[in-house]
Amino acid sequence: MTDDPKAPRGLDPDDWAAFRATAHALLDAALGKMEQAREGRVWTPFPAEMKAAFDQPLPQAGLGEAALSAQLEALLPYGAGNTHPRFFGWVHGSGTPQNLLAEITASAINANAGGRDHGAIYVERQVIRWCRELFAFPDTASGLVVSGTSMATLIALKVARDARLGFASRKAGLGGARLVGYASCEAHACNARAFDILGLGADALRKVPVNDRFEMDTAALRRAIAADLEAGLQPFAVIGTAGTVNTGATDPLTELAAVAAEHGLWFHVDGAFGALATLVPHLRPRFEAIERADSVAFDFHKWMHVNYDAGFVLVRDEALHRHAFSDRPDYLKGEARGLAAGNPWPVEYGPELSRGFRALKVWSQIAGFGMQRLGGVIAENCAQAAYLACRVSADPQFELMAPAALNICWFRSRAPGLGGPALDALNGEIVIRLQEQGLAAPSTTRLRGASVIRVNLTNHRTRTADLDQLLSDVARLGSDPETRRAAAV
Amino acid sequence: MTDDPKAPRGLDPDDWAAFRATAHALLDAALGKMEQAREGRVWTPFPAEMKAAFDQPLPQAGLGEAALSAQLEALLPYGAGNTHPRFFGWVHGSGTPQNLLAEITASAINANAGGRDHGAIYVERQVIRWCRELFAFPDTASGLVVSGTSMATLIALKVARDARLGFASRKAGLGGARLVGYASCEAHACNARAFDILGLGADALRKVPVNDRFEMDTAALRRAIAADLEAGLQPFAVIGTAGTVNTGATDPLTELAAVAAEHGLWFHVDGAFGALATLVPHLRPRFEAIERADSVAFDFHKWMHVNYDAGFVLVRDEALHRHAFSDRPDYLKGEARGLAAGNPWPVEYGPELSRGFRALKVWSQIAGFGMQRLGGVIAENCAQAAYLACRVSADPQFELMAPAALNICWFRSRAPGLGGPALDALNGEIVIRLQEQGLAAPSTTRLRGASVIRVNLTNHRTRTADLDQLLSDVARLGSDPETRRAAAV
Repeated sequence: MTDDPKAPRGLDPDDWAAFRATAHALLDAALGKMEQAREGRVWTPFPAEMKAAFDQPLPQAGLGEAALSAQLEALLPYGAGNTHPRFFGWVHGSGTPQNLLAEITASAINANAGGRDHGAIYVERQVIRWCRELFAFPDTASGLVVSGTSMATLIALKVARDARLGFASRKAGLGGARLVGYASCEAHACNARAFDILGLGADALRKVPVNDRFEMDTAALRRAIAADLEAGLQPFAVIGTAGTVNTGATDPLTELAAVAAEHGLWFHVDGAFGALATLVPHLRPRFEAIERADSVAFDFHKWMHVNYDAGFVLVRDEALHRHAFSDRPDYLKGEARGLAAGNPWPVEYGPELSRGFRALKVWSQIAGFGMQRLGGVIAENCAQAAYLACRVSADPQFELMAPAALNICWFRSRAPGLGGPALDALNGEIVIRLQEQGLAAPSTTRLRGASVIRVNLTNHRTRTADLDQLLSDVARLGSDPETRRAAAV
Repeated sequence: MTDDPKAPRGLDPDDWAAFRATAHALLDAALGKMEQAREGRVWTPFPAEMKAAFDQPLPQAGLGEAALSAQLEALLPYGAGNTHPRFFGWVHGSGTPQNLLAEITASAINANAGGRDHGAIYVERQVIRWCRELFAFPDTASGLVVSGTSMATLIALKVARDARLGFASRKAGLGGARLVGYASCEAHACNARAFDILGLGADALRKVPVNDRFEMDTAALRRAIAADLEAGLQPFAVIGTAGTVNTGATDPLTELAAVAAEHGLWFHVDGAFGALATLVPHLRPRFEAIERADSVAFDFHKWMHVNYDAGFVLVRDEALHRHAFSDRPDYLKGEARGLAAGNPWPVEYGPELSRGFRALKVWSQIAGFGMQRLGGVIAENCAQAAYLACRVSADPQFELMAPAALNICWFRSRAPGLGGPALDALNGEIVIRLQEQGLAAPSTTRLRGASVIRVNLTNHRTRTADLDQLLSDVARLGSDPETRRAAAV
């Protein structure tokens, strides 16, 4: 119990000079990995020996710093590929080397940003202020940095649920309430999942049909609301999507805002990746009605390239937001002085009580690059999708499956004599081989009944030459007899 | 649209050599901050000029790397104090310099650990395997690294809710179900909050009385269940706490497991900080019945000192866990090859779809230090609480307010002629002054009707000398006329 040499010695390095050398060497390796982001394979499967190294019994003794650092360094090549310029799969951001500066700082500070009065709280307030400005929300609006849009959506819809049922329902439960909400059939699954978690049931989120541009059909929305009211249900929320995950479509937000206002419904915008397209001047009009929303959910780790993970929920009415999560009544203030001051606390705006200093990565990305440069990357990706669609259209080896929408291009390889399921299989095999050979990572999806190659551009490293190379690789694989044989099995 | 020099240039450094120098310099500063963790003030209020620097309009132009790095470095002194050996407030972990190695690596890899087939997925599986071993769960049990116990609790209780109502309720909603659960009146607020979020209502979590050691009264639990059954309600879950936040008490887990089994209830253990006390041989018997739980929620960022944030949910029945979150039916497998292989995906076990590579910090802490050293720190903190209680008891200037429990000691400064609210106020003022003067950061709480000084030891840097210094500072402030005057106002 005294400071005798046999007593546990805490978890700080025994030899700081050695530890510093180890940390700097690992930083060098990490920077090397980042500097070479354009080189080599897009994706490399995790090798069997690495799988074995990460399938060990619970260790009683530790590796120590040097061996630990070596094993960490050995992991560097085995990302998902999203840091490479030819990663076009799903909607992943690419991250930035500069963001590592924020992560080093946050790790050293090791703040719990759940509350109290310290630097992290003020940095997060700065991020909240910036998000209000970004979407022209009032100065009184509240917000919270979260892990991503799934969590942001859960928070926003809980506020909407509780606002509709009254805050006594937080204690009493839903009772027999029959709340229903509306989103397009192209809306992201996280919305229905939030309905499920919140006890409303995923089916209580009505899937409203879309027009031929995959945007919500407002007339169908009105009919759905009328039918539910007629059936004695309680409509409470309309969810508009700014940039659907599959097609990049944006619902007619202005009309949705009007319908919501007319029926007294909460208007939530799921802007997971698309909301930030508002930074591009010529796209802004399509996204402007976000400023009429009651809440907005979006990610920083997608089109703002903050390193994983970071998203945000913005809520117009701070009091409704706080009343849905805070257990402190208004009259119960925290301490006025000392470490426990600094009210309100972030824990009053979401489900998490311990919270890392995720806000610093976001602050750093915005402060370091500025909105103009961040918006420029988004504009460039949209232009690249149009470029790719243009090249595909002009080449008889390919078929453009839909006009490029926002940042996405869908196409497929044609093959003389092949159609239907056989052509679907060929295009699926092409994508798998692109991934397996480390050449590129687009994904496949189904669009209007066909299996297509989907190129999603939320990548600040992609250049025109990467798109040219993709097309040349798809063409080569599409006419490669071995690929065709494998697809035919 | 070509790679012309005026086109947006992505978000990589323009000058890698300069960026490397900046990153290494910032790492040096961060390591310097960590190396000096024992020195200086425990907590320093965020100065007015820093507040102003973080209250700026949304910037169009960026700071660039050098100015950004300078502003990040300027933040280093303004943590919450939890990295200092005399931080005794609430239940915060202290973090480790070694964990920074994992954060550098994770940042460079920038993985989305939601799914697909890449290194992060295997690292998280290793962590899941280790957690199963730690609590003697079967090899088939599932788990997920999350931001903390609040999220882990929400996940565990959703599994319990859906298992009880049937998975069709995920689509249909709760309907008129009247589920009720049980926790002690000392249980953490995150449990009731999860009931609220899940639509059951916070009141559906019955607060069962505790005995004089703050442990759940099992007879009262049986009565509560009987009364609810009698009233036609549907008991579905019992929550046992391993280490309550306020008093460090652990419910009689073996008895709770038996009651749960008897009534067919889900047995969840909230082990936020206390569950890891199972690493201490002489404490293990009190925690052993965790292995009988259906689910366990706990934090790595508390008593395992992983840098914020990281927690875990462990679920005995993998299928129930997956069916509560996955939208993929069993027969619908993902791709067998390529980047989209590697089923099941982590997204099938929790609400988040994009997920940072939080598992690497956890893997690194366990692999780097080993369980013996991590457990040694926990044992040391418990011994320190006993040491402090012993010193307090022996000194007439102080009053020990309860026997030291696990890692917590409650006491107060006595003052001749003072009692009741005046003595409460004096002790509150002592704690505020300790914090404001940067000497130490205990917290205050109410215990058996009195305001007391609470010293919580989840700190691997604390040494006996830090506790001696705390007592000497409390004694000095307690007899300081100025402190007494301030408390009397």
